[in-house]
Amino acid sequence: MMEDKDYMAMALALAAQGAGRVAPNPLVGAVVVKDGEVIGRGYHQNVGGPHAEVHAIDDAADGAAGATLYVTLEPCNHQGRTPPCTEKILAAGIRRVVSAMADPNPTVKGGGNAYLQSRGIEVLCGVREREARQLNESFITFIQTGRPFVVLKLAATLDGRIATRTGDARWVTGEAARNRVHCLRHAMDAIMVGAGTVKADDPQLTTRLTQGPGIDPIRLVLDTRLSMSKRARMLTQSSSAPTYIVCGPAASEEDRRRLAAGGARILDVPLKKGRIDMCALMVQLGKMGITSVLIEGGAQVAASALAADIVDKVVIFYAPKILGGDDGVPMFRGQGPAFMREALAIHDMTLEMVGEDVMVQGYRKKLTPETY
Amino acid sequence: MMEDKDYMAMALALAAQGAGRVAPNPLVGAVVVKDGEVIGRGYHQNVGGPHAEVHAIDDAADGAAGATLYVTLEPCNHQGRTPPCTEKILAAGIRRVVSAMADPNPTVKGGGNAYLQSRGIEVLCGVREREARQLNESFITFIQTGRPFVVLKLAATLDGRIATRTGDARWVTGEAARNRVHCLRHAMDAIMVGAGTVKADDPQLTTRLTQGPGIDPIRLVLDTRLSMSKRARMLTQSSSAPTYIVCGPAASEEDRRRLAAGGARILDVPLKKGRIDMCALMVQLGKMGITSVLIEGGAQVAASALAADIVDKVVIFYAPKILGGDDGVPMFRGQGPAFMREALAIHDMTLEMVGEDVMVQGYRKKLTPETY
Repeated sequence: MMEDKDYMAMALALAAQGAGRVAPNPLVGAVVVKDGEVIGRGYHQNVGGPHAEVHAIDDAADGAAGATLYVTLEPCNHQGRTPPCTEKILAAGIRRVVSAMADPNPTVKGGGNAYLQSRGIEVLCGVREREARQLNESFITFIQTGRPFVVLKLAATLDGRIATRTGDARWVTGEAARNRVHCLRHAMDAIMVGAGTVKADDPQLTTRLTQGPGIDPIRLVLDTRLSMSKRARMLTQSSSAPTYIVCGPAASEEDRRRLAAGGARILDVPLKKGRIDMCALMVQLGKMGITSVLIEGGAQVAASALAADIVDKVVIFYAPKILGGDDGVPMFRGQGPAFMREALAIHDMTLEMVGEDVMVQGYRKKLTPETY
Repeated sequence: MMEDKDYMAMALALAAQGAGRVAPNPLVGAVVVKDGEVIGRGYHQNVGGPHAEVHAIDDAADGAAGATLYVTLEPCNHQGRTPPCTEKILAAGIRRVVSAMADPNPTVKGGGNAYLQSRGIEVLCGVREREARQLNESFITFIQTGRPFVVLKLAATLDGRIATRTGDARWVTGEAARNRVHCLRHAMDAIMVGAGTVKADDPQLTTRLTQGPGIDPIRLVLDTRLSMSKRARMLTQSSSAPTYIVCGPAASEEDRRRLAAGGARILDVPLKKGRIDMCALMVQLGKMGITSVLIEGGAQVAASALAADIVDKVVIFYAPKILGGDDGVPMFRGQGPAFMREALAIHDMTLEMVGEDVMVQGYRKKLTPETY
């Protein structure tokens, strides 16, 4: 017999299909179930389009009357770009609504469920809540703090080196891990690197999924003095996403014009100790509606991000190889703490083999229902 | 219904109970099964004592007639410190013998099984062979090469640092991981560190199991010029195992006398490029009957061992923490390769959470039945 949590798992899988296409909205999936049979399926497919509940109820058509709706997020009770889902649910004659989590937006949280309950609908909330929260970790952080969810991605040898002493990093990890990074890019709004990485690797920073075209993230290059070449691949290539070059106040007018002519957008951010102020940058990105940022390198940017405490999650791929010296490029640059007890803690660490590499994921804050 | 592989799993679990007590013999376990019932259990408990088959058959007593014997290693067919097990098996009236692997000693391999078969006993070999080989990886390497199986153990932060810039390493990993290291020590014949580690940490290098007393490994300190203090804890403490200080030919007579008076045994090994010749040392340890060595630090010894290609297995504990700078103590010292493709490959990598830490294990050579 299928249980609530099984139907919710189906709704969560549907929700995930919207990855890369719905920000700044959350990923939401829904299924309509009657007499143990799934008669409607839907997910939020793109910004401005119908919500998951609407797709699922329309898919169930007349069958929705008397059915149970499983939805990964509490149904909305307000007029947004689309009418409130609660009215759609009532009109369809749904009898029971099971959601995975309440709306994380503090101003509307609980409103949809309370309204449905007041209209005689049976309401259950919190089924597979942890998974639902993890699926929408970007959205939740963005809606609650106004700044993007930040993922720091690293690919290293078992001895913690992201490149050899000559800077060679092709390739550290295997194909499966590199494909996984493209899935990450697909799901994130923006990707961030330092100007050093652009100069060294001239990366495309586009999304190339094995199963077909993906959504390119907005590219962000930290380049305090606008030293980047306008012939960098990420400016000359064809991509649906723009490239922003983040600079400090001392960047010259000439360089601004030069790079703008190359197609880049220039983003001015104040400095802190001579480097881009990461916290100020995150506030600015939040105001631009960017809900998630993937930091991909290099060691200086990674260290600055950690030090500024803007990192929410780390994703580290370890390749099954050892360089065996102390001169390879480390994961982080700069001074570390004097004592081991001052190390930054990583919480809720999980492991997965991705091809021949190990993927370790963890969070800077503990994953409690209210904080992640 | 229990199958051959299930009974063999029981025999393997029994075999593991001899860890730390049987070297240079292999770990062997055995069960006697009749009509689906386990009627005898045994394992090799200590050097010179009866083999596992003898314990299991004696445990089964008269029931052994007509029964099946499951044993993790092909029964011996030669007179050693004890009479051949094949004769015991025949005398008991065992009808079928299932073993996990053939004897890895090339001079006797297959002899036991062939003899039993020639006497009308049904013989099956190769059930859970991979696990049996892994259980006896030290013994197999020792019997086939004459040198010890070498495990390099490291405990690092996620960014690959074994200590902070000030050398602080208390503690990198959590209690569960540290307990696991004591289990490793218990199972290994010897433990090796550099003189730098002795000076910095003054470690005991004894086995402290949570469940009671363990077997201390022989301690080996690489100290080319015998610079170690005779007041080091590992010399003054009480331990059933000796401490060897490995030095080069230039070590002075005075230092030799000084440390010998402190209770140390001095081991002379030739140098290579000014450091202890690791390959020569392994040959010497093999001649001393040492079948396994656990390398526990520091970064210079680890690098030398890798470079000399004496490492068979790496066991790396990663703690859920990040130092975030480039000045912490790295896993390895010295020059690494110029290109990523020159990195040393680690094969058959496996992962396990040990408390809050990740344990990654892997081998320098691929685990094929004949090579590991």
